[in-house]
Amino acid sequence: MKILVINSGSSSIKYQLIDMADESVMVSGLVERIGEEQGVMTHKAYPGTDREAVVKLEQPIPDHSVGLKLAIDLTSSGENAVCSLDEIKAVGHRVVAGGENFSAPVVVTPEMMEELKDTERLAPLHNPANLGGAREAMALFPGVPQVLVFDTAFHQTIPPHAFMYALPYEYYEEDHIRRYGAHGTSHKYVAGECARLMDKPLDELNVITIHMGNGASMAAVKDGKCVDTSMGLTPLEGLVMGTRSGDVDPAVHNYLAVNRGMDIATIDNVLHKESGLKGLCGMNDMRDIHAAIEKGDERAELALGVQTYRTRKYIGSYMAVLGRVDAVVFTAGIGENDSIVRRKTMEGLEPFGMKIDVQANDKRAKEPMLISTGDSPVAIWVIPTNEELAIARETRDIVNG
Amino acid sequence: MKILVINSGSSSIKYQLIDMADESVMVSGLVERIGEEQGVMTHKAYPGTDREAVVKLEQPIPDHSVGLKLAIDLTSSGENAVCSLDEIKAVGHRVVAGGENFSAPVVVTPEMMEELKDTERLAPLHNPANLGGAREAMALFPGVPQVLVFDTAFHQTIPPHAFMYALPYEYYEEDHIRRYGAHGTSHKYVAGECARLMDKPLDELNVITIHMGNGASMAAVKDGKCVDTSMGLTPLEGLVMGTRSGDVDPAVHNYLAVNRGMDIATIDNVLHKESGLKGLCGMNDMRDIHAAIEKGDERAELALGVQTYRTRKYIGSYMAVLGRVDAVVFTAGIGENDSIVRRKTMEGLEPFGMKIDVQANDKRAKEPMLISTGDSPVAIWVIPTNEELAIARETRDIVNG
Repeated sequence: MKILVINSGSSSIKYQLIDMADESVMVSGLVERIGEEQGVMTHKAYPGTDREAVVKLEQPIPDHSVGLKLAIDLTSSGENAVCSLDEIKAVGHRVVAGGENFSAPVVVTPEMMEELKDTERLAPLHNPANLGGAREAMALFPGVPQVLVFDTAFHQTIPPHAFMYALPYEYYEEDHIRRYGAHGTSHKYVAGECARLMDKPLDELNVITIHMGNGASMAAVKDGKCVDTSMGLTPLEGLVMGTRSGDVDPAVHNYLAVNRGMDIATIDNVLHKESGLKGLCGMNDMRDIHAAIEKGDERAELALGVQTYRTRKYIGSYMAVLGRVDAVVFTAGIGENDSIVRRKTMEGLEPFGMKIDVQANDKRAKEPMLISTGDSPVAIWVIPTNEELAIARETRDIVNG
Repeated sequence: MKILVINSGSSSIKYQLIDMADESVMVSGLVERIGEEQGVMTHKAYPGTDREAVVKLEQPIPDHSVGLKLAIDLTSSGENAVCSLDEIKAVGHRVVAGGENFSAPVVVTPEMMEELKDTERLAPLHNPANLGGAREAMALFPGVPQVLVFDTAFHQTIPPHAFMYALPYEYYEEDHIRRYGAHGTSHKYVAGECARLMDKPLDELNVITIHMGNGASMAAVKDGKCVDTSMGLTPLEGLVMGTRSGDVDPAVHNYLAVNRGMDIATIDNVLHKESGLKGLCGMNDMRDIHAAIEKGDERAELALGVQTYRTRKYIGSYMAVLGRVDAVVFTAGIGENDSIVRRKTMEGLEPFGMKIDVQANDKRAKEPMLISTGDSPVAIWVIPTNEELAIARETRDIVNG
């Protein structure tokens, strides 16, 4: 069974064709600058193998429909074709926000599309593009099931005492204001991988998963189910991110309005795009930050200090939530590649049975790595995430019933 | 040495006269409804003793100066006088926010009053009244040292990685946006009492202090020094309070603006006055909430669940911050009197050496109580706070050099 996975952004489409027989990637590609004067497309057949073939295109790509059509044509016809169109038995779509009503993957119908419009305000930057991609794919693949996989689905097991804000109750009833979280597909995937690697049933595993890329979030997973997560109503809450503030005093908005004359939209924009690591030190790429620290940049050092301290505090929170922690997992760009961030984050947690092995932590691998010492009661892992494969698996499972 | 302690609010004055020889309270009183048509005043000489005498007045009290004058007259003249005016050797004033420049108690000068104006925007509801009280007292007690004791002072040892928000750095440089905390006098007092009760030097004590009244905050105290606290730039951040939200996704503001058409001042007002326990269940008095839960009120149960869960998460955070925790201390209205909140907060923390003794916890006393089991590695205490005595001690110490 071959499954196409689509992650449709506001001006981009990421896609992979996965052969579920061996979970190998037959095609991967990225369409960018959709709607701009010149679009850019990179398409790889059999990526990372010795048969790899790369196609690069620069041409106007006026809309998502054209971009998707290009991807399908390169996949199923011409010299780099990997299969015929009718071999693609299902398409899986990443959708950031499912709200309260979409708590599991679904085969989408046109009626559902109407209902899903209400979720767009929960992720105004992502959901319209995600759902638009699904709409295009419905037209291009008539009769092929289109499956929506929601990034919030894994968090649907979070209980009310953890998902409710202490706000007027009608905000929840009328405007659905509550914690939804994000990165759920990734948290679920690495929690599952962690159970497999530790040879433990997932439903007996307590794990804290740390997805740390440009966006960053954590999940507390108890007996295989998510019971809390750091992102909230939107992906702004929680950890310090590249340009996002994470947690701040909610009175900061009014203080900025009174003292700097800022309006709410401007403040919101600053919290999303000018804050986080960038706000603290002017840089949002961890590699630049490490290089600056080497040269004695104190604000870069402060940024790293704030970021890792705040992550450590969340680890403590989730220890209290879980009671027993079997493992801590780092994943995504920074989590998989930045040994300094991992080491600094785990500093001082030894009394809670979390002992990092500094040598093991300094290694680099594309495979999962155990980075705790042999006598560490809590296992500390680096597990590469694979959201596309996770979406493909969900898609297969729902199509197969 | 007799010290007058004054806590001057926007329309009220709380005061105590303390004899530092034995730390006994010679006078305590409350002036309310200052500036309203009819003011109310309750004045007690030797409160809580068999000599107690209570005076109640209802009369117009047009301003703080008149209120303070009444308090002084009842203290030093007439049938309930406890001492002559010239026996009062110093006056200590509670000031909520000291900002970055006032990190310890000071004997105030008129020049300092000018400099302190800049702190008013950090606590617009409290600081103007606090400082106004000091100004009146300077006029009424010429030559008597007026000492300002800042509620933020205890938090001045918090390191930058814990007090900085991940916001544009210039907000810190230009507008002093950072974590300051509050309730510092109370956290410091109960941390000191805890060391005394445990017969341990304060500078070797690691303790998590939970001040939970109508406002609520926590502090992580390492080797006797505060290293983190839950309130932030203002007293809105952190725990769920009576009517204050505590932590929320900082994107909630924009969501409310877009979806409910609210402006920033309205949102800020809701977060301060219509949120917290009141927002969740319509009640902000814990006694009402417990009664409602008894009758099966699900939203009251939810409110208690959210509040205690969030406190527990902070305990976990501070475990991670401290590494080793010697004690957890509950104080203030709810912390001292609500055994259900204490029990629910500590639920599930047994694996971290925090074992509550349910029987001991259910007792009521005005004295400090140890409520952990005999074999609990972490001591859990209920310690009544006494901010007035703490202010009097600080005042004495600075006046005595």
